[in-house]
Amino acid sequence: MYGEIITIGNELISGRILDSNAWYAAGRLTASGLSVTRITTVGDDPNRLSEALKSSLKESKFVIVTGGLGSTEDDMTNEIVASALNLPLNRDREMFQQIESYVETRGIEMTASLEKMAWMPKGSKTLNCKGATCGFYLTVDHVGLYFLPGVTDQMRYLLDKFVLPDILRQYKTLPVLRQRILKLYGLIEPGIAETLKNFSGRTEDLILGFYPHFPENHITITLRGHDEPTVLSDLDRVEKEIRNLVGSYIFATGNQSMESVVGDMLTERRLTISVAESCTGGLIGNLLTNVSGSSNYFLEGLVVYSNQSKVDRLNVSPKTIERYGAVSDQTVREMAKGVKKSLNTDIGLAVTGIAGPDGGSKEKPVGTVFIGMTAGNEIFSRRYLFWGTREQVKLNTAIMALDWVRRYLNGDPFLPGI
Amino acid sequence: MYGEIITIGNELISGRILDSNAWYAAGRLTASGLSVTRITTVGDDPNRLSEALKSSLKESKFVIVTGGLGSTEDDMTNEIVASALNLPLNRDREMFQQIESYVETRGIEMTASLEKMAWMPKGSKTLNCKGATCGFYLTVDHVGLYFLPGVTDQMRYLLDKFVLPDILRQYKTLPVLRQRILKLYGLIEPGIAETLKNFSGRTEDLILGFYPHFPENHITITLRGHDEPTVLSDLDRVEKEIRNLVGSYIFATGNQSMESVVGDMLTERRLTISVAESCTGGLIGNLLTNVSGSSNYFLEGLVVYSNQSKVDRLNVSPKTIERYGAVSDQTVREMAKGVKKSLNTDIGLAVTGIAGPDGGSKEKPVGTVFIGMTAGNEIFSRRYLFWGTREQVKLNTAIMALDWVRRYLNGDPFLPGI
Repeated sequence: MYGEIITIGNELISGRILDSNAWYAAGRLTASGLSVTRITTVGDDPNRLSEALKSSLKESKFVIVTGGLGSTEDDMTNEIVASALNLPLNRDREMFQQIESYVETRGIEMTASLEKMAWMPKGSKTLNCKGATCGFYLTVDHVGLYFLPGVTDQMRYLLDKFVLPDILRQYKTLPVLRQRILKLYGLIEPGIAETLKNFSGRTEDLILGFYPHFPENHITITLRGHDEPTVLSDLDRVEKEIRNLVGSYIFATGNQSMESVVGDMLTERRLTISVAESCTGGLIGNLLTNVSGSSNYFLEGLVVYSNQSKVDRLNVSPKTIERYGAVSDQTVREMAKGVKKSLNTDIGLAVTGIAGPDGGSKEKPVGTVFIGMTAGNEIFSRRYLFWGTREQVKLNTAIMALDWVRRYLNGDPFLPGI
Repeated sequence: MYGEIITIGNELISGRILDSNAWYAAGRLTASGLSVTRITTVGDDPNRLSEALKSSLKESKFVIVTGGLGSTEDDMTNEIVASALNLPLNRDREMFQQIESYVETRGIEMTASLEKMAWMPKGSKTLNCKGATCGFYLTVDHVGLYFLPGVTDQMRYLLDKFVLPDILRQYKTLPVLRQRILKLYGLIEPGIAETLKNFSGRTEDLILGFYPHFPENHITITLRGHDEPTVLSDLDRVEKEIRNLVGSYIFATGNQSMESVVGDMLTERRLTISVAESCTGGLIGNLLTNVSGSSNYFLEGLVVYSNQSKVDRLNVSPKTIERYGAVSDQTVREMAKGVKKSLNTDIGLAVTGIAGPDGGSKEKPVGTVFIGMTAGNEIFSRRYLFWGTREQVKLNTAIMALDWVRRYLNGDPFLPGI
């Protein structure tokens, strides 16, 4: 099953943004047992897009096209497709109603640009015509053409929910195919590649995929077979074997996130947590509160960015900061104790570090981070060194801190520091 | 000057890695005033690569090809190019000596795979044949073909040092091309499209681009001309005209972000800010601290997720919460006053809302958010209704709150609420 991907946008061919849509679609198609033979990127340019579409019809069984579906002047995919394939544009009733209701709910005026989105090449069917996330598909000369928005979240949602199942359904000769995603934190990339090489259970029906997703790494297990029970039991076996290899590095599966896993554990055990954040500036609280229902375990957080704030809010001793520095093992321990006591929670979590790009020293270079945690009568602290930009150091710090909570509640050892 | 980019690699069409080579090359070419019309990615597949090469010769003045130059079995670019262009492979003396000396220094054996790298299509010239970083170029039918390794650092080095200067030298007639990015917040997409349509100054040398970047929107102004002073003064004129149309919605240009603009303003006026976050859970603090040097104006933040926390930390009256609710105008005003007083800053900023997906009511549906701000003797508050997922409501709330600070310090009115 060969297919290809066409991505549209001046922002792509001018190098203004990285083409993560093509990457994502290629990865998901490959993981589903389909082959991508070509990715073509063109600007908002009728000739080039038309050329790319025609060429793809000659070579492929399916084509995924992203971009150019919005309501601005640049968005011309519908018109170009119709003209390239010699099809008239028809107004899609369902899509038009959708736009009408959108306009109504928001209390804005219907404009020509908005209405334009409802005009599609004859024979097109809408994909998930609900909310603002909408695409369409069309079959030409037995080739399935799928048109998706360029907005990342919308593209991914439609691809996973509608396009992939549709392609797989059409080629019924394909055996049963199931996929599982394992999310890892803390194993560096070459380490994972080596580990997977040692995986014995590789057969033709098994595809192992590996996707860095900073600061996490995701492993996809894709399996084909002739019937569902066999495929699922094989999937269980492969997952178990991989778990034997990479053990507690796996923090989540499927759509779970680090913060949702930690949240589920806290909810289940009826524990509360408080956070004292210095270098992360609120990121840990932000992640925790991305989970609906987080108010059950996360009541408060303190962003103690300045030294004085650490003293005032957490009762950290000024002498400790003076002697060891705000970024130190001693300070982070007092921060963790202080936040647990002051906010009266079961677990107190604290981070302090140098996110960069300035502020580093020979002894404590940029990326130096201390994490501290206290629960019951126990207190833990450790020093880490993270690489990357300011945002990357912050994100690694936040995820590592949450991973501590997960590992603590699981009885797993924390990841080694330096 | 039209050109294109071809990237080669199974790791690219399988979605295993993001194609940052195409992105980098496209960005560098565009910034140099050259136009990229197409990016094609193919696997290590002779037919597809051959096809892509032939097609590019018809359409472009220059072609940058990356990947497939190494010494593994997959690396077949040299052979495929020779075969596609009907050229014999010759052994390049300089390249062969380079490989010989490499083999000698490392004390390894010369192999067929290594020697293979010295065999190039007739007429090729090496690019920087030093060390392991080497590529070659070839002119066919007046089209310049540049072959670079897929290894990121090597590709970038050769592109910047040899390829770009070579292309620019050949096409001296090239006009000057300059780009400017304007970032907008608060004008919805159809609104911007309509507004830009009314823009009178559109000519052939001017390209206006529009890119949604949730929750922001970015407008790019690209202008060509014969000399830099004229282009820059035209750019100023166009920017000014657009500013006349969309006014204070423009919060930043170029690489600035909302938080960096707000940070610069606070630094310049020597003001400090504190934040009381309920529904955003720490996101505003996280954004503020993404800016290096933010410790000058952001000393502390409070994540007051629970009602009790609002009472304990901010001195919000329990009666206010009981009577009007935690998500109310009255509460957000007390929060803003409380955080400014408690943390002793010039500006106190507060947000409270219902991020969803649960917790909404008929009177206060999901997405209802109150923002409050106090500075000096003034206090402001307003109600908004944001759309989207939990994360989107949080992000819109955070950016809107920061936009308040920007507009307050600029003397602009806040965006209207409901």
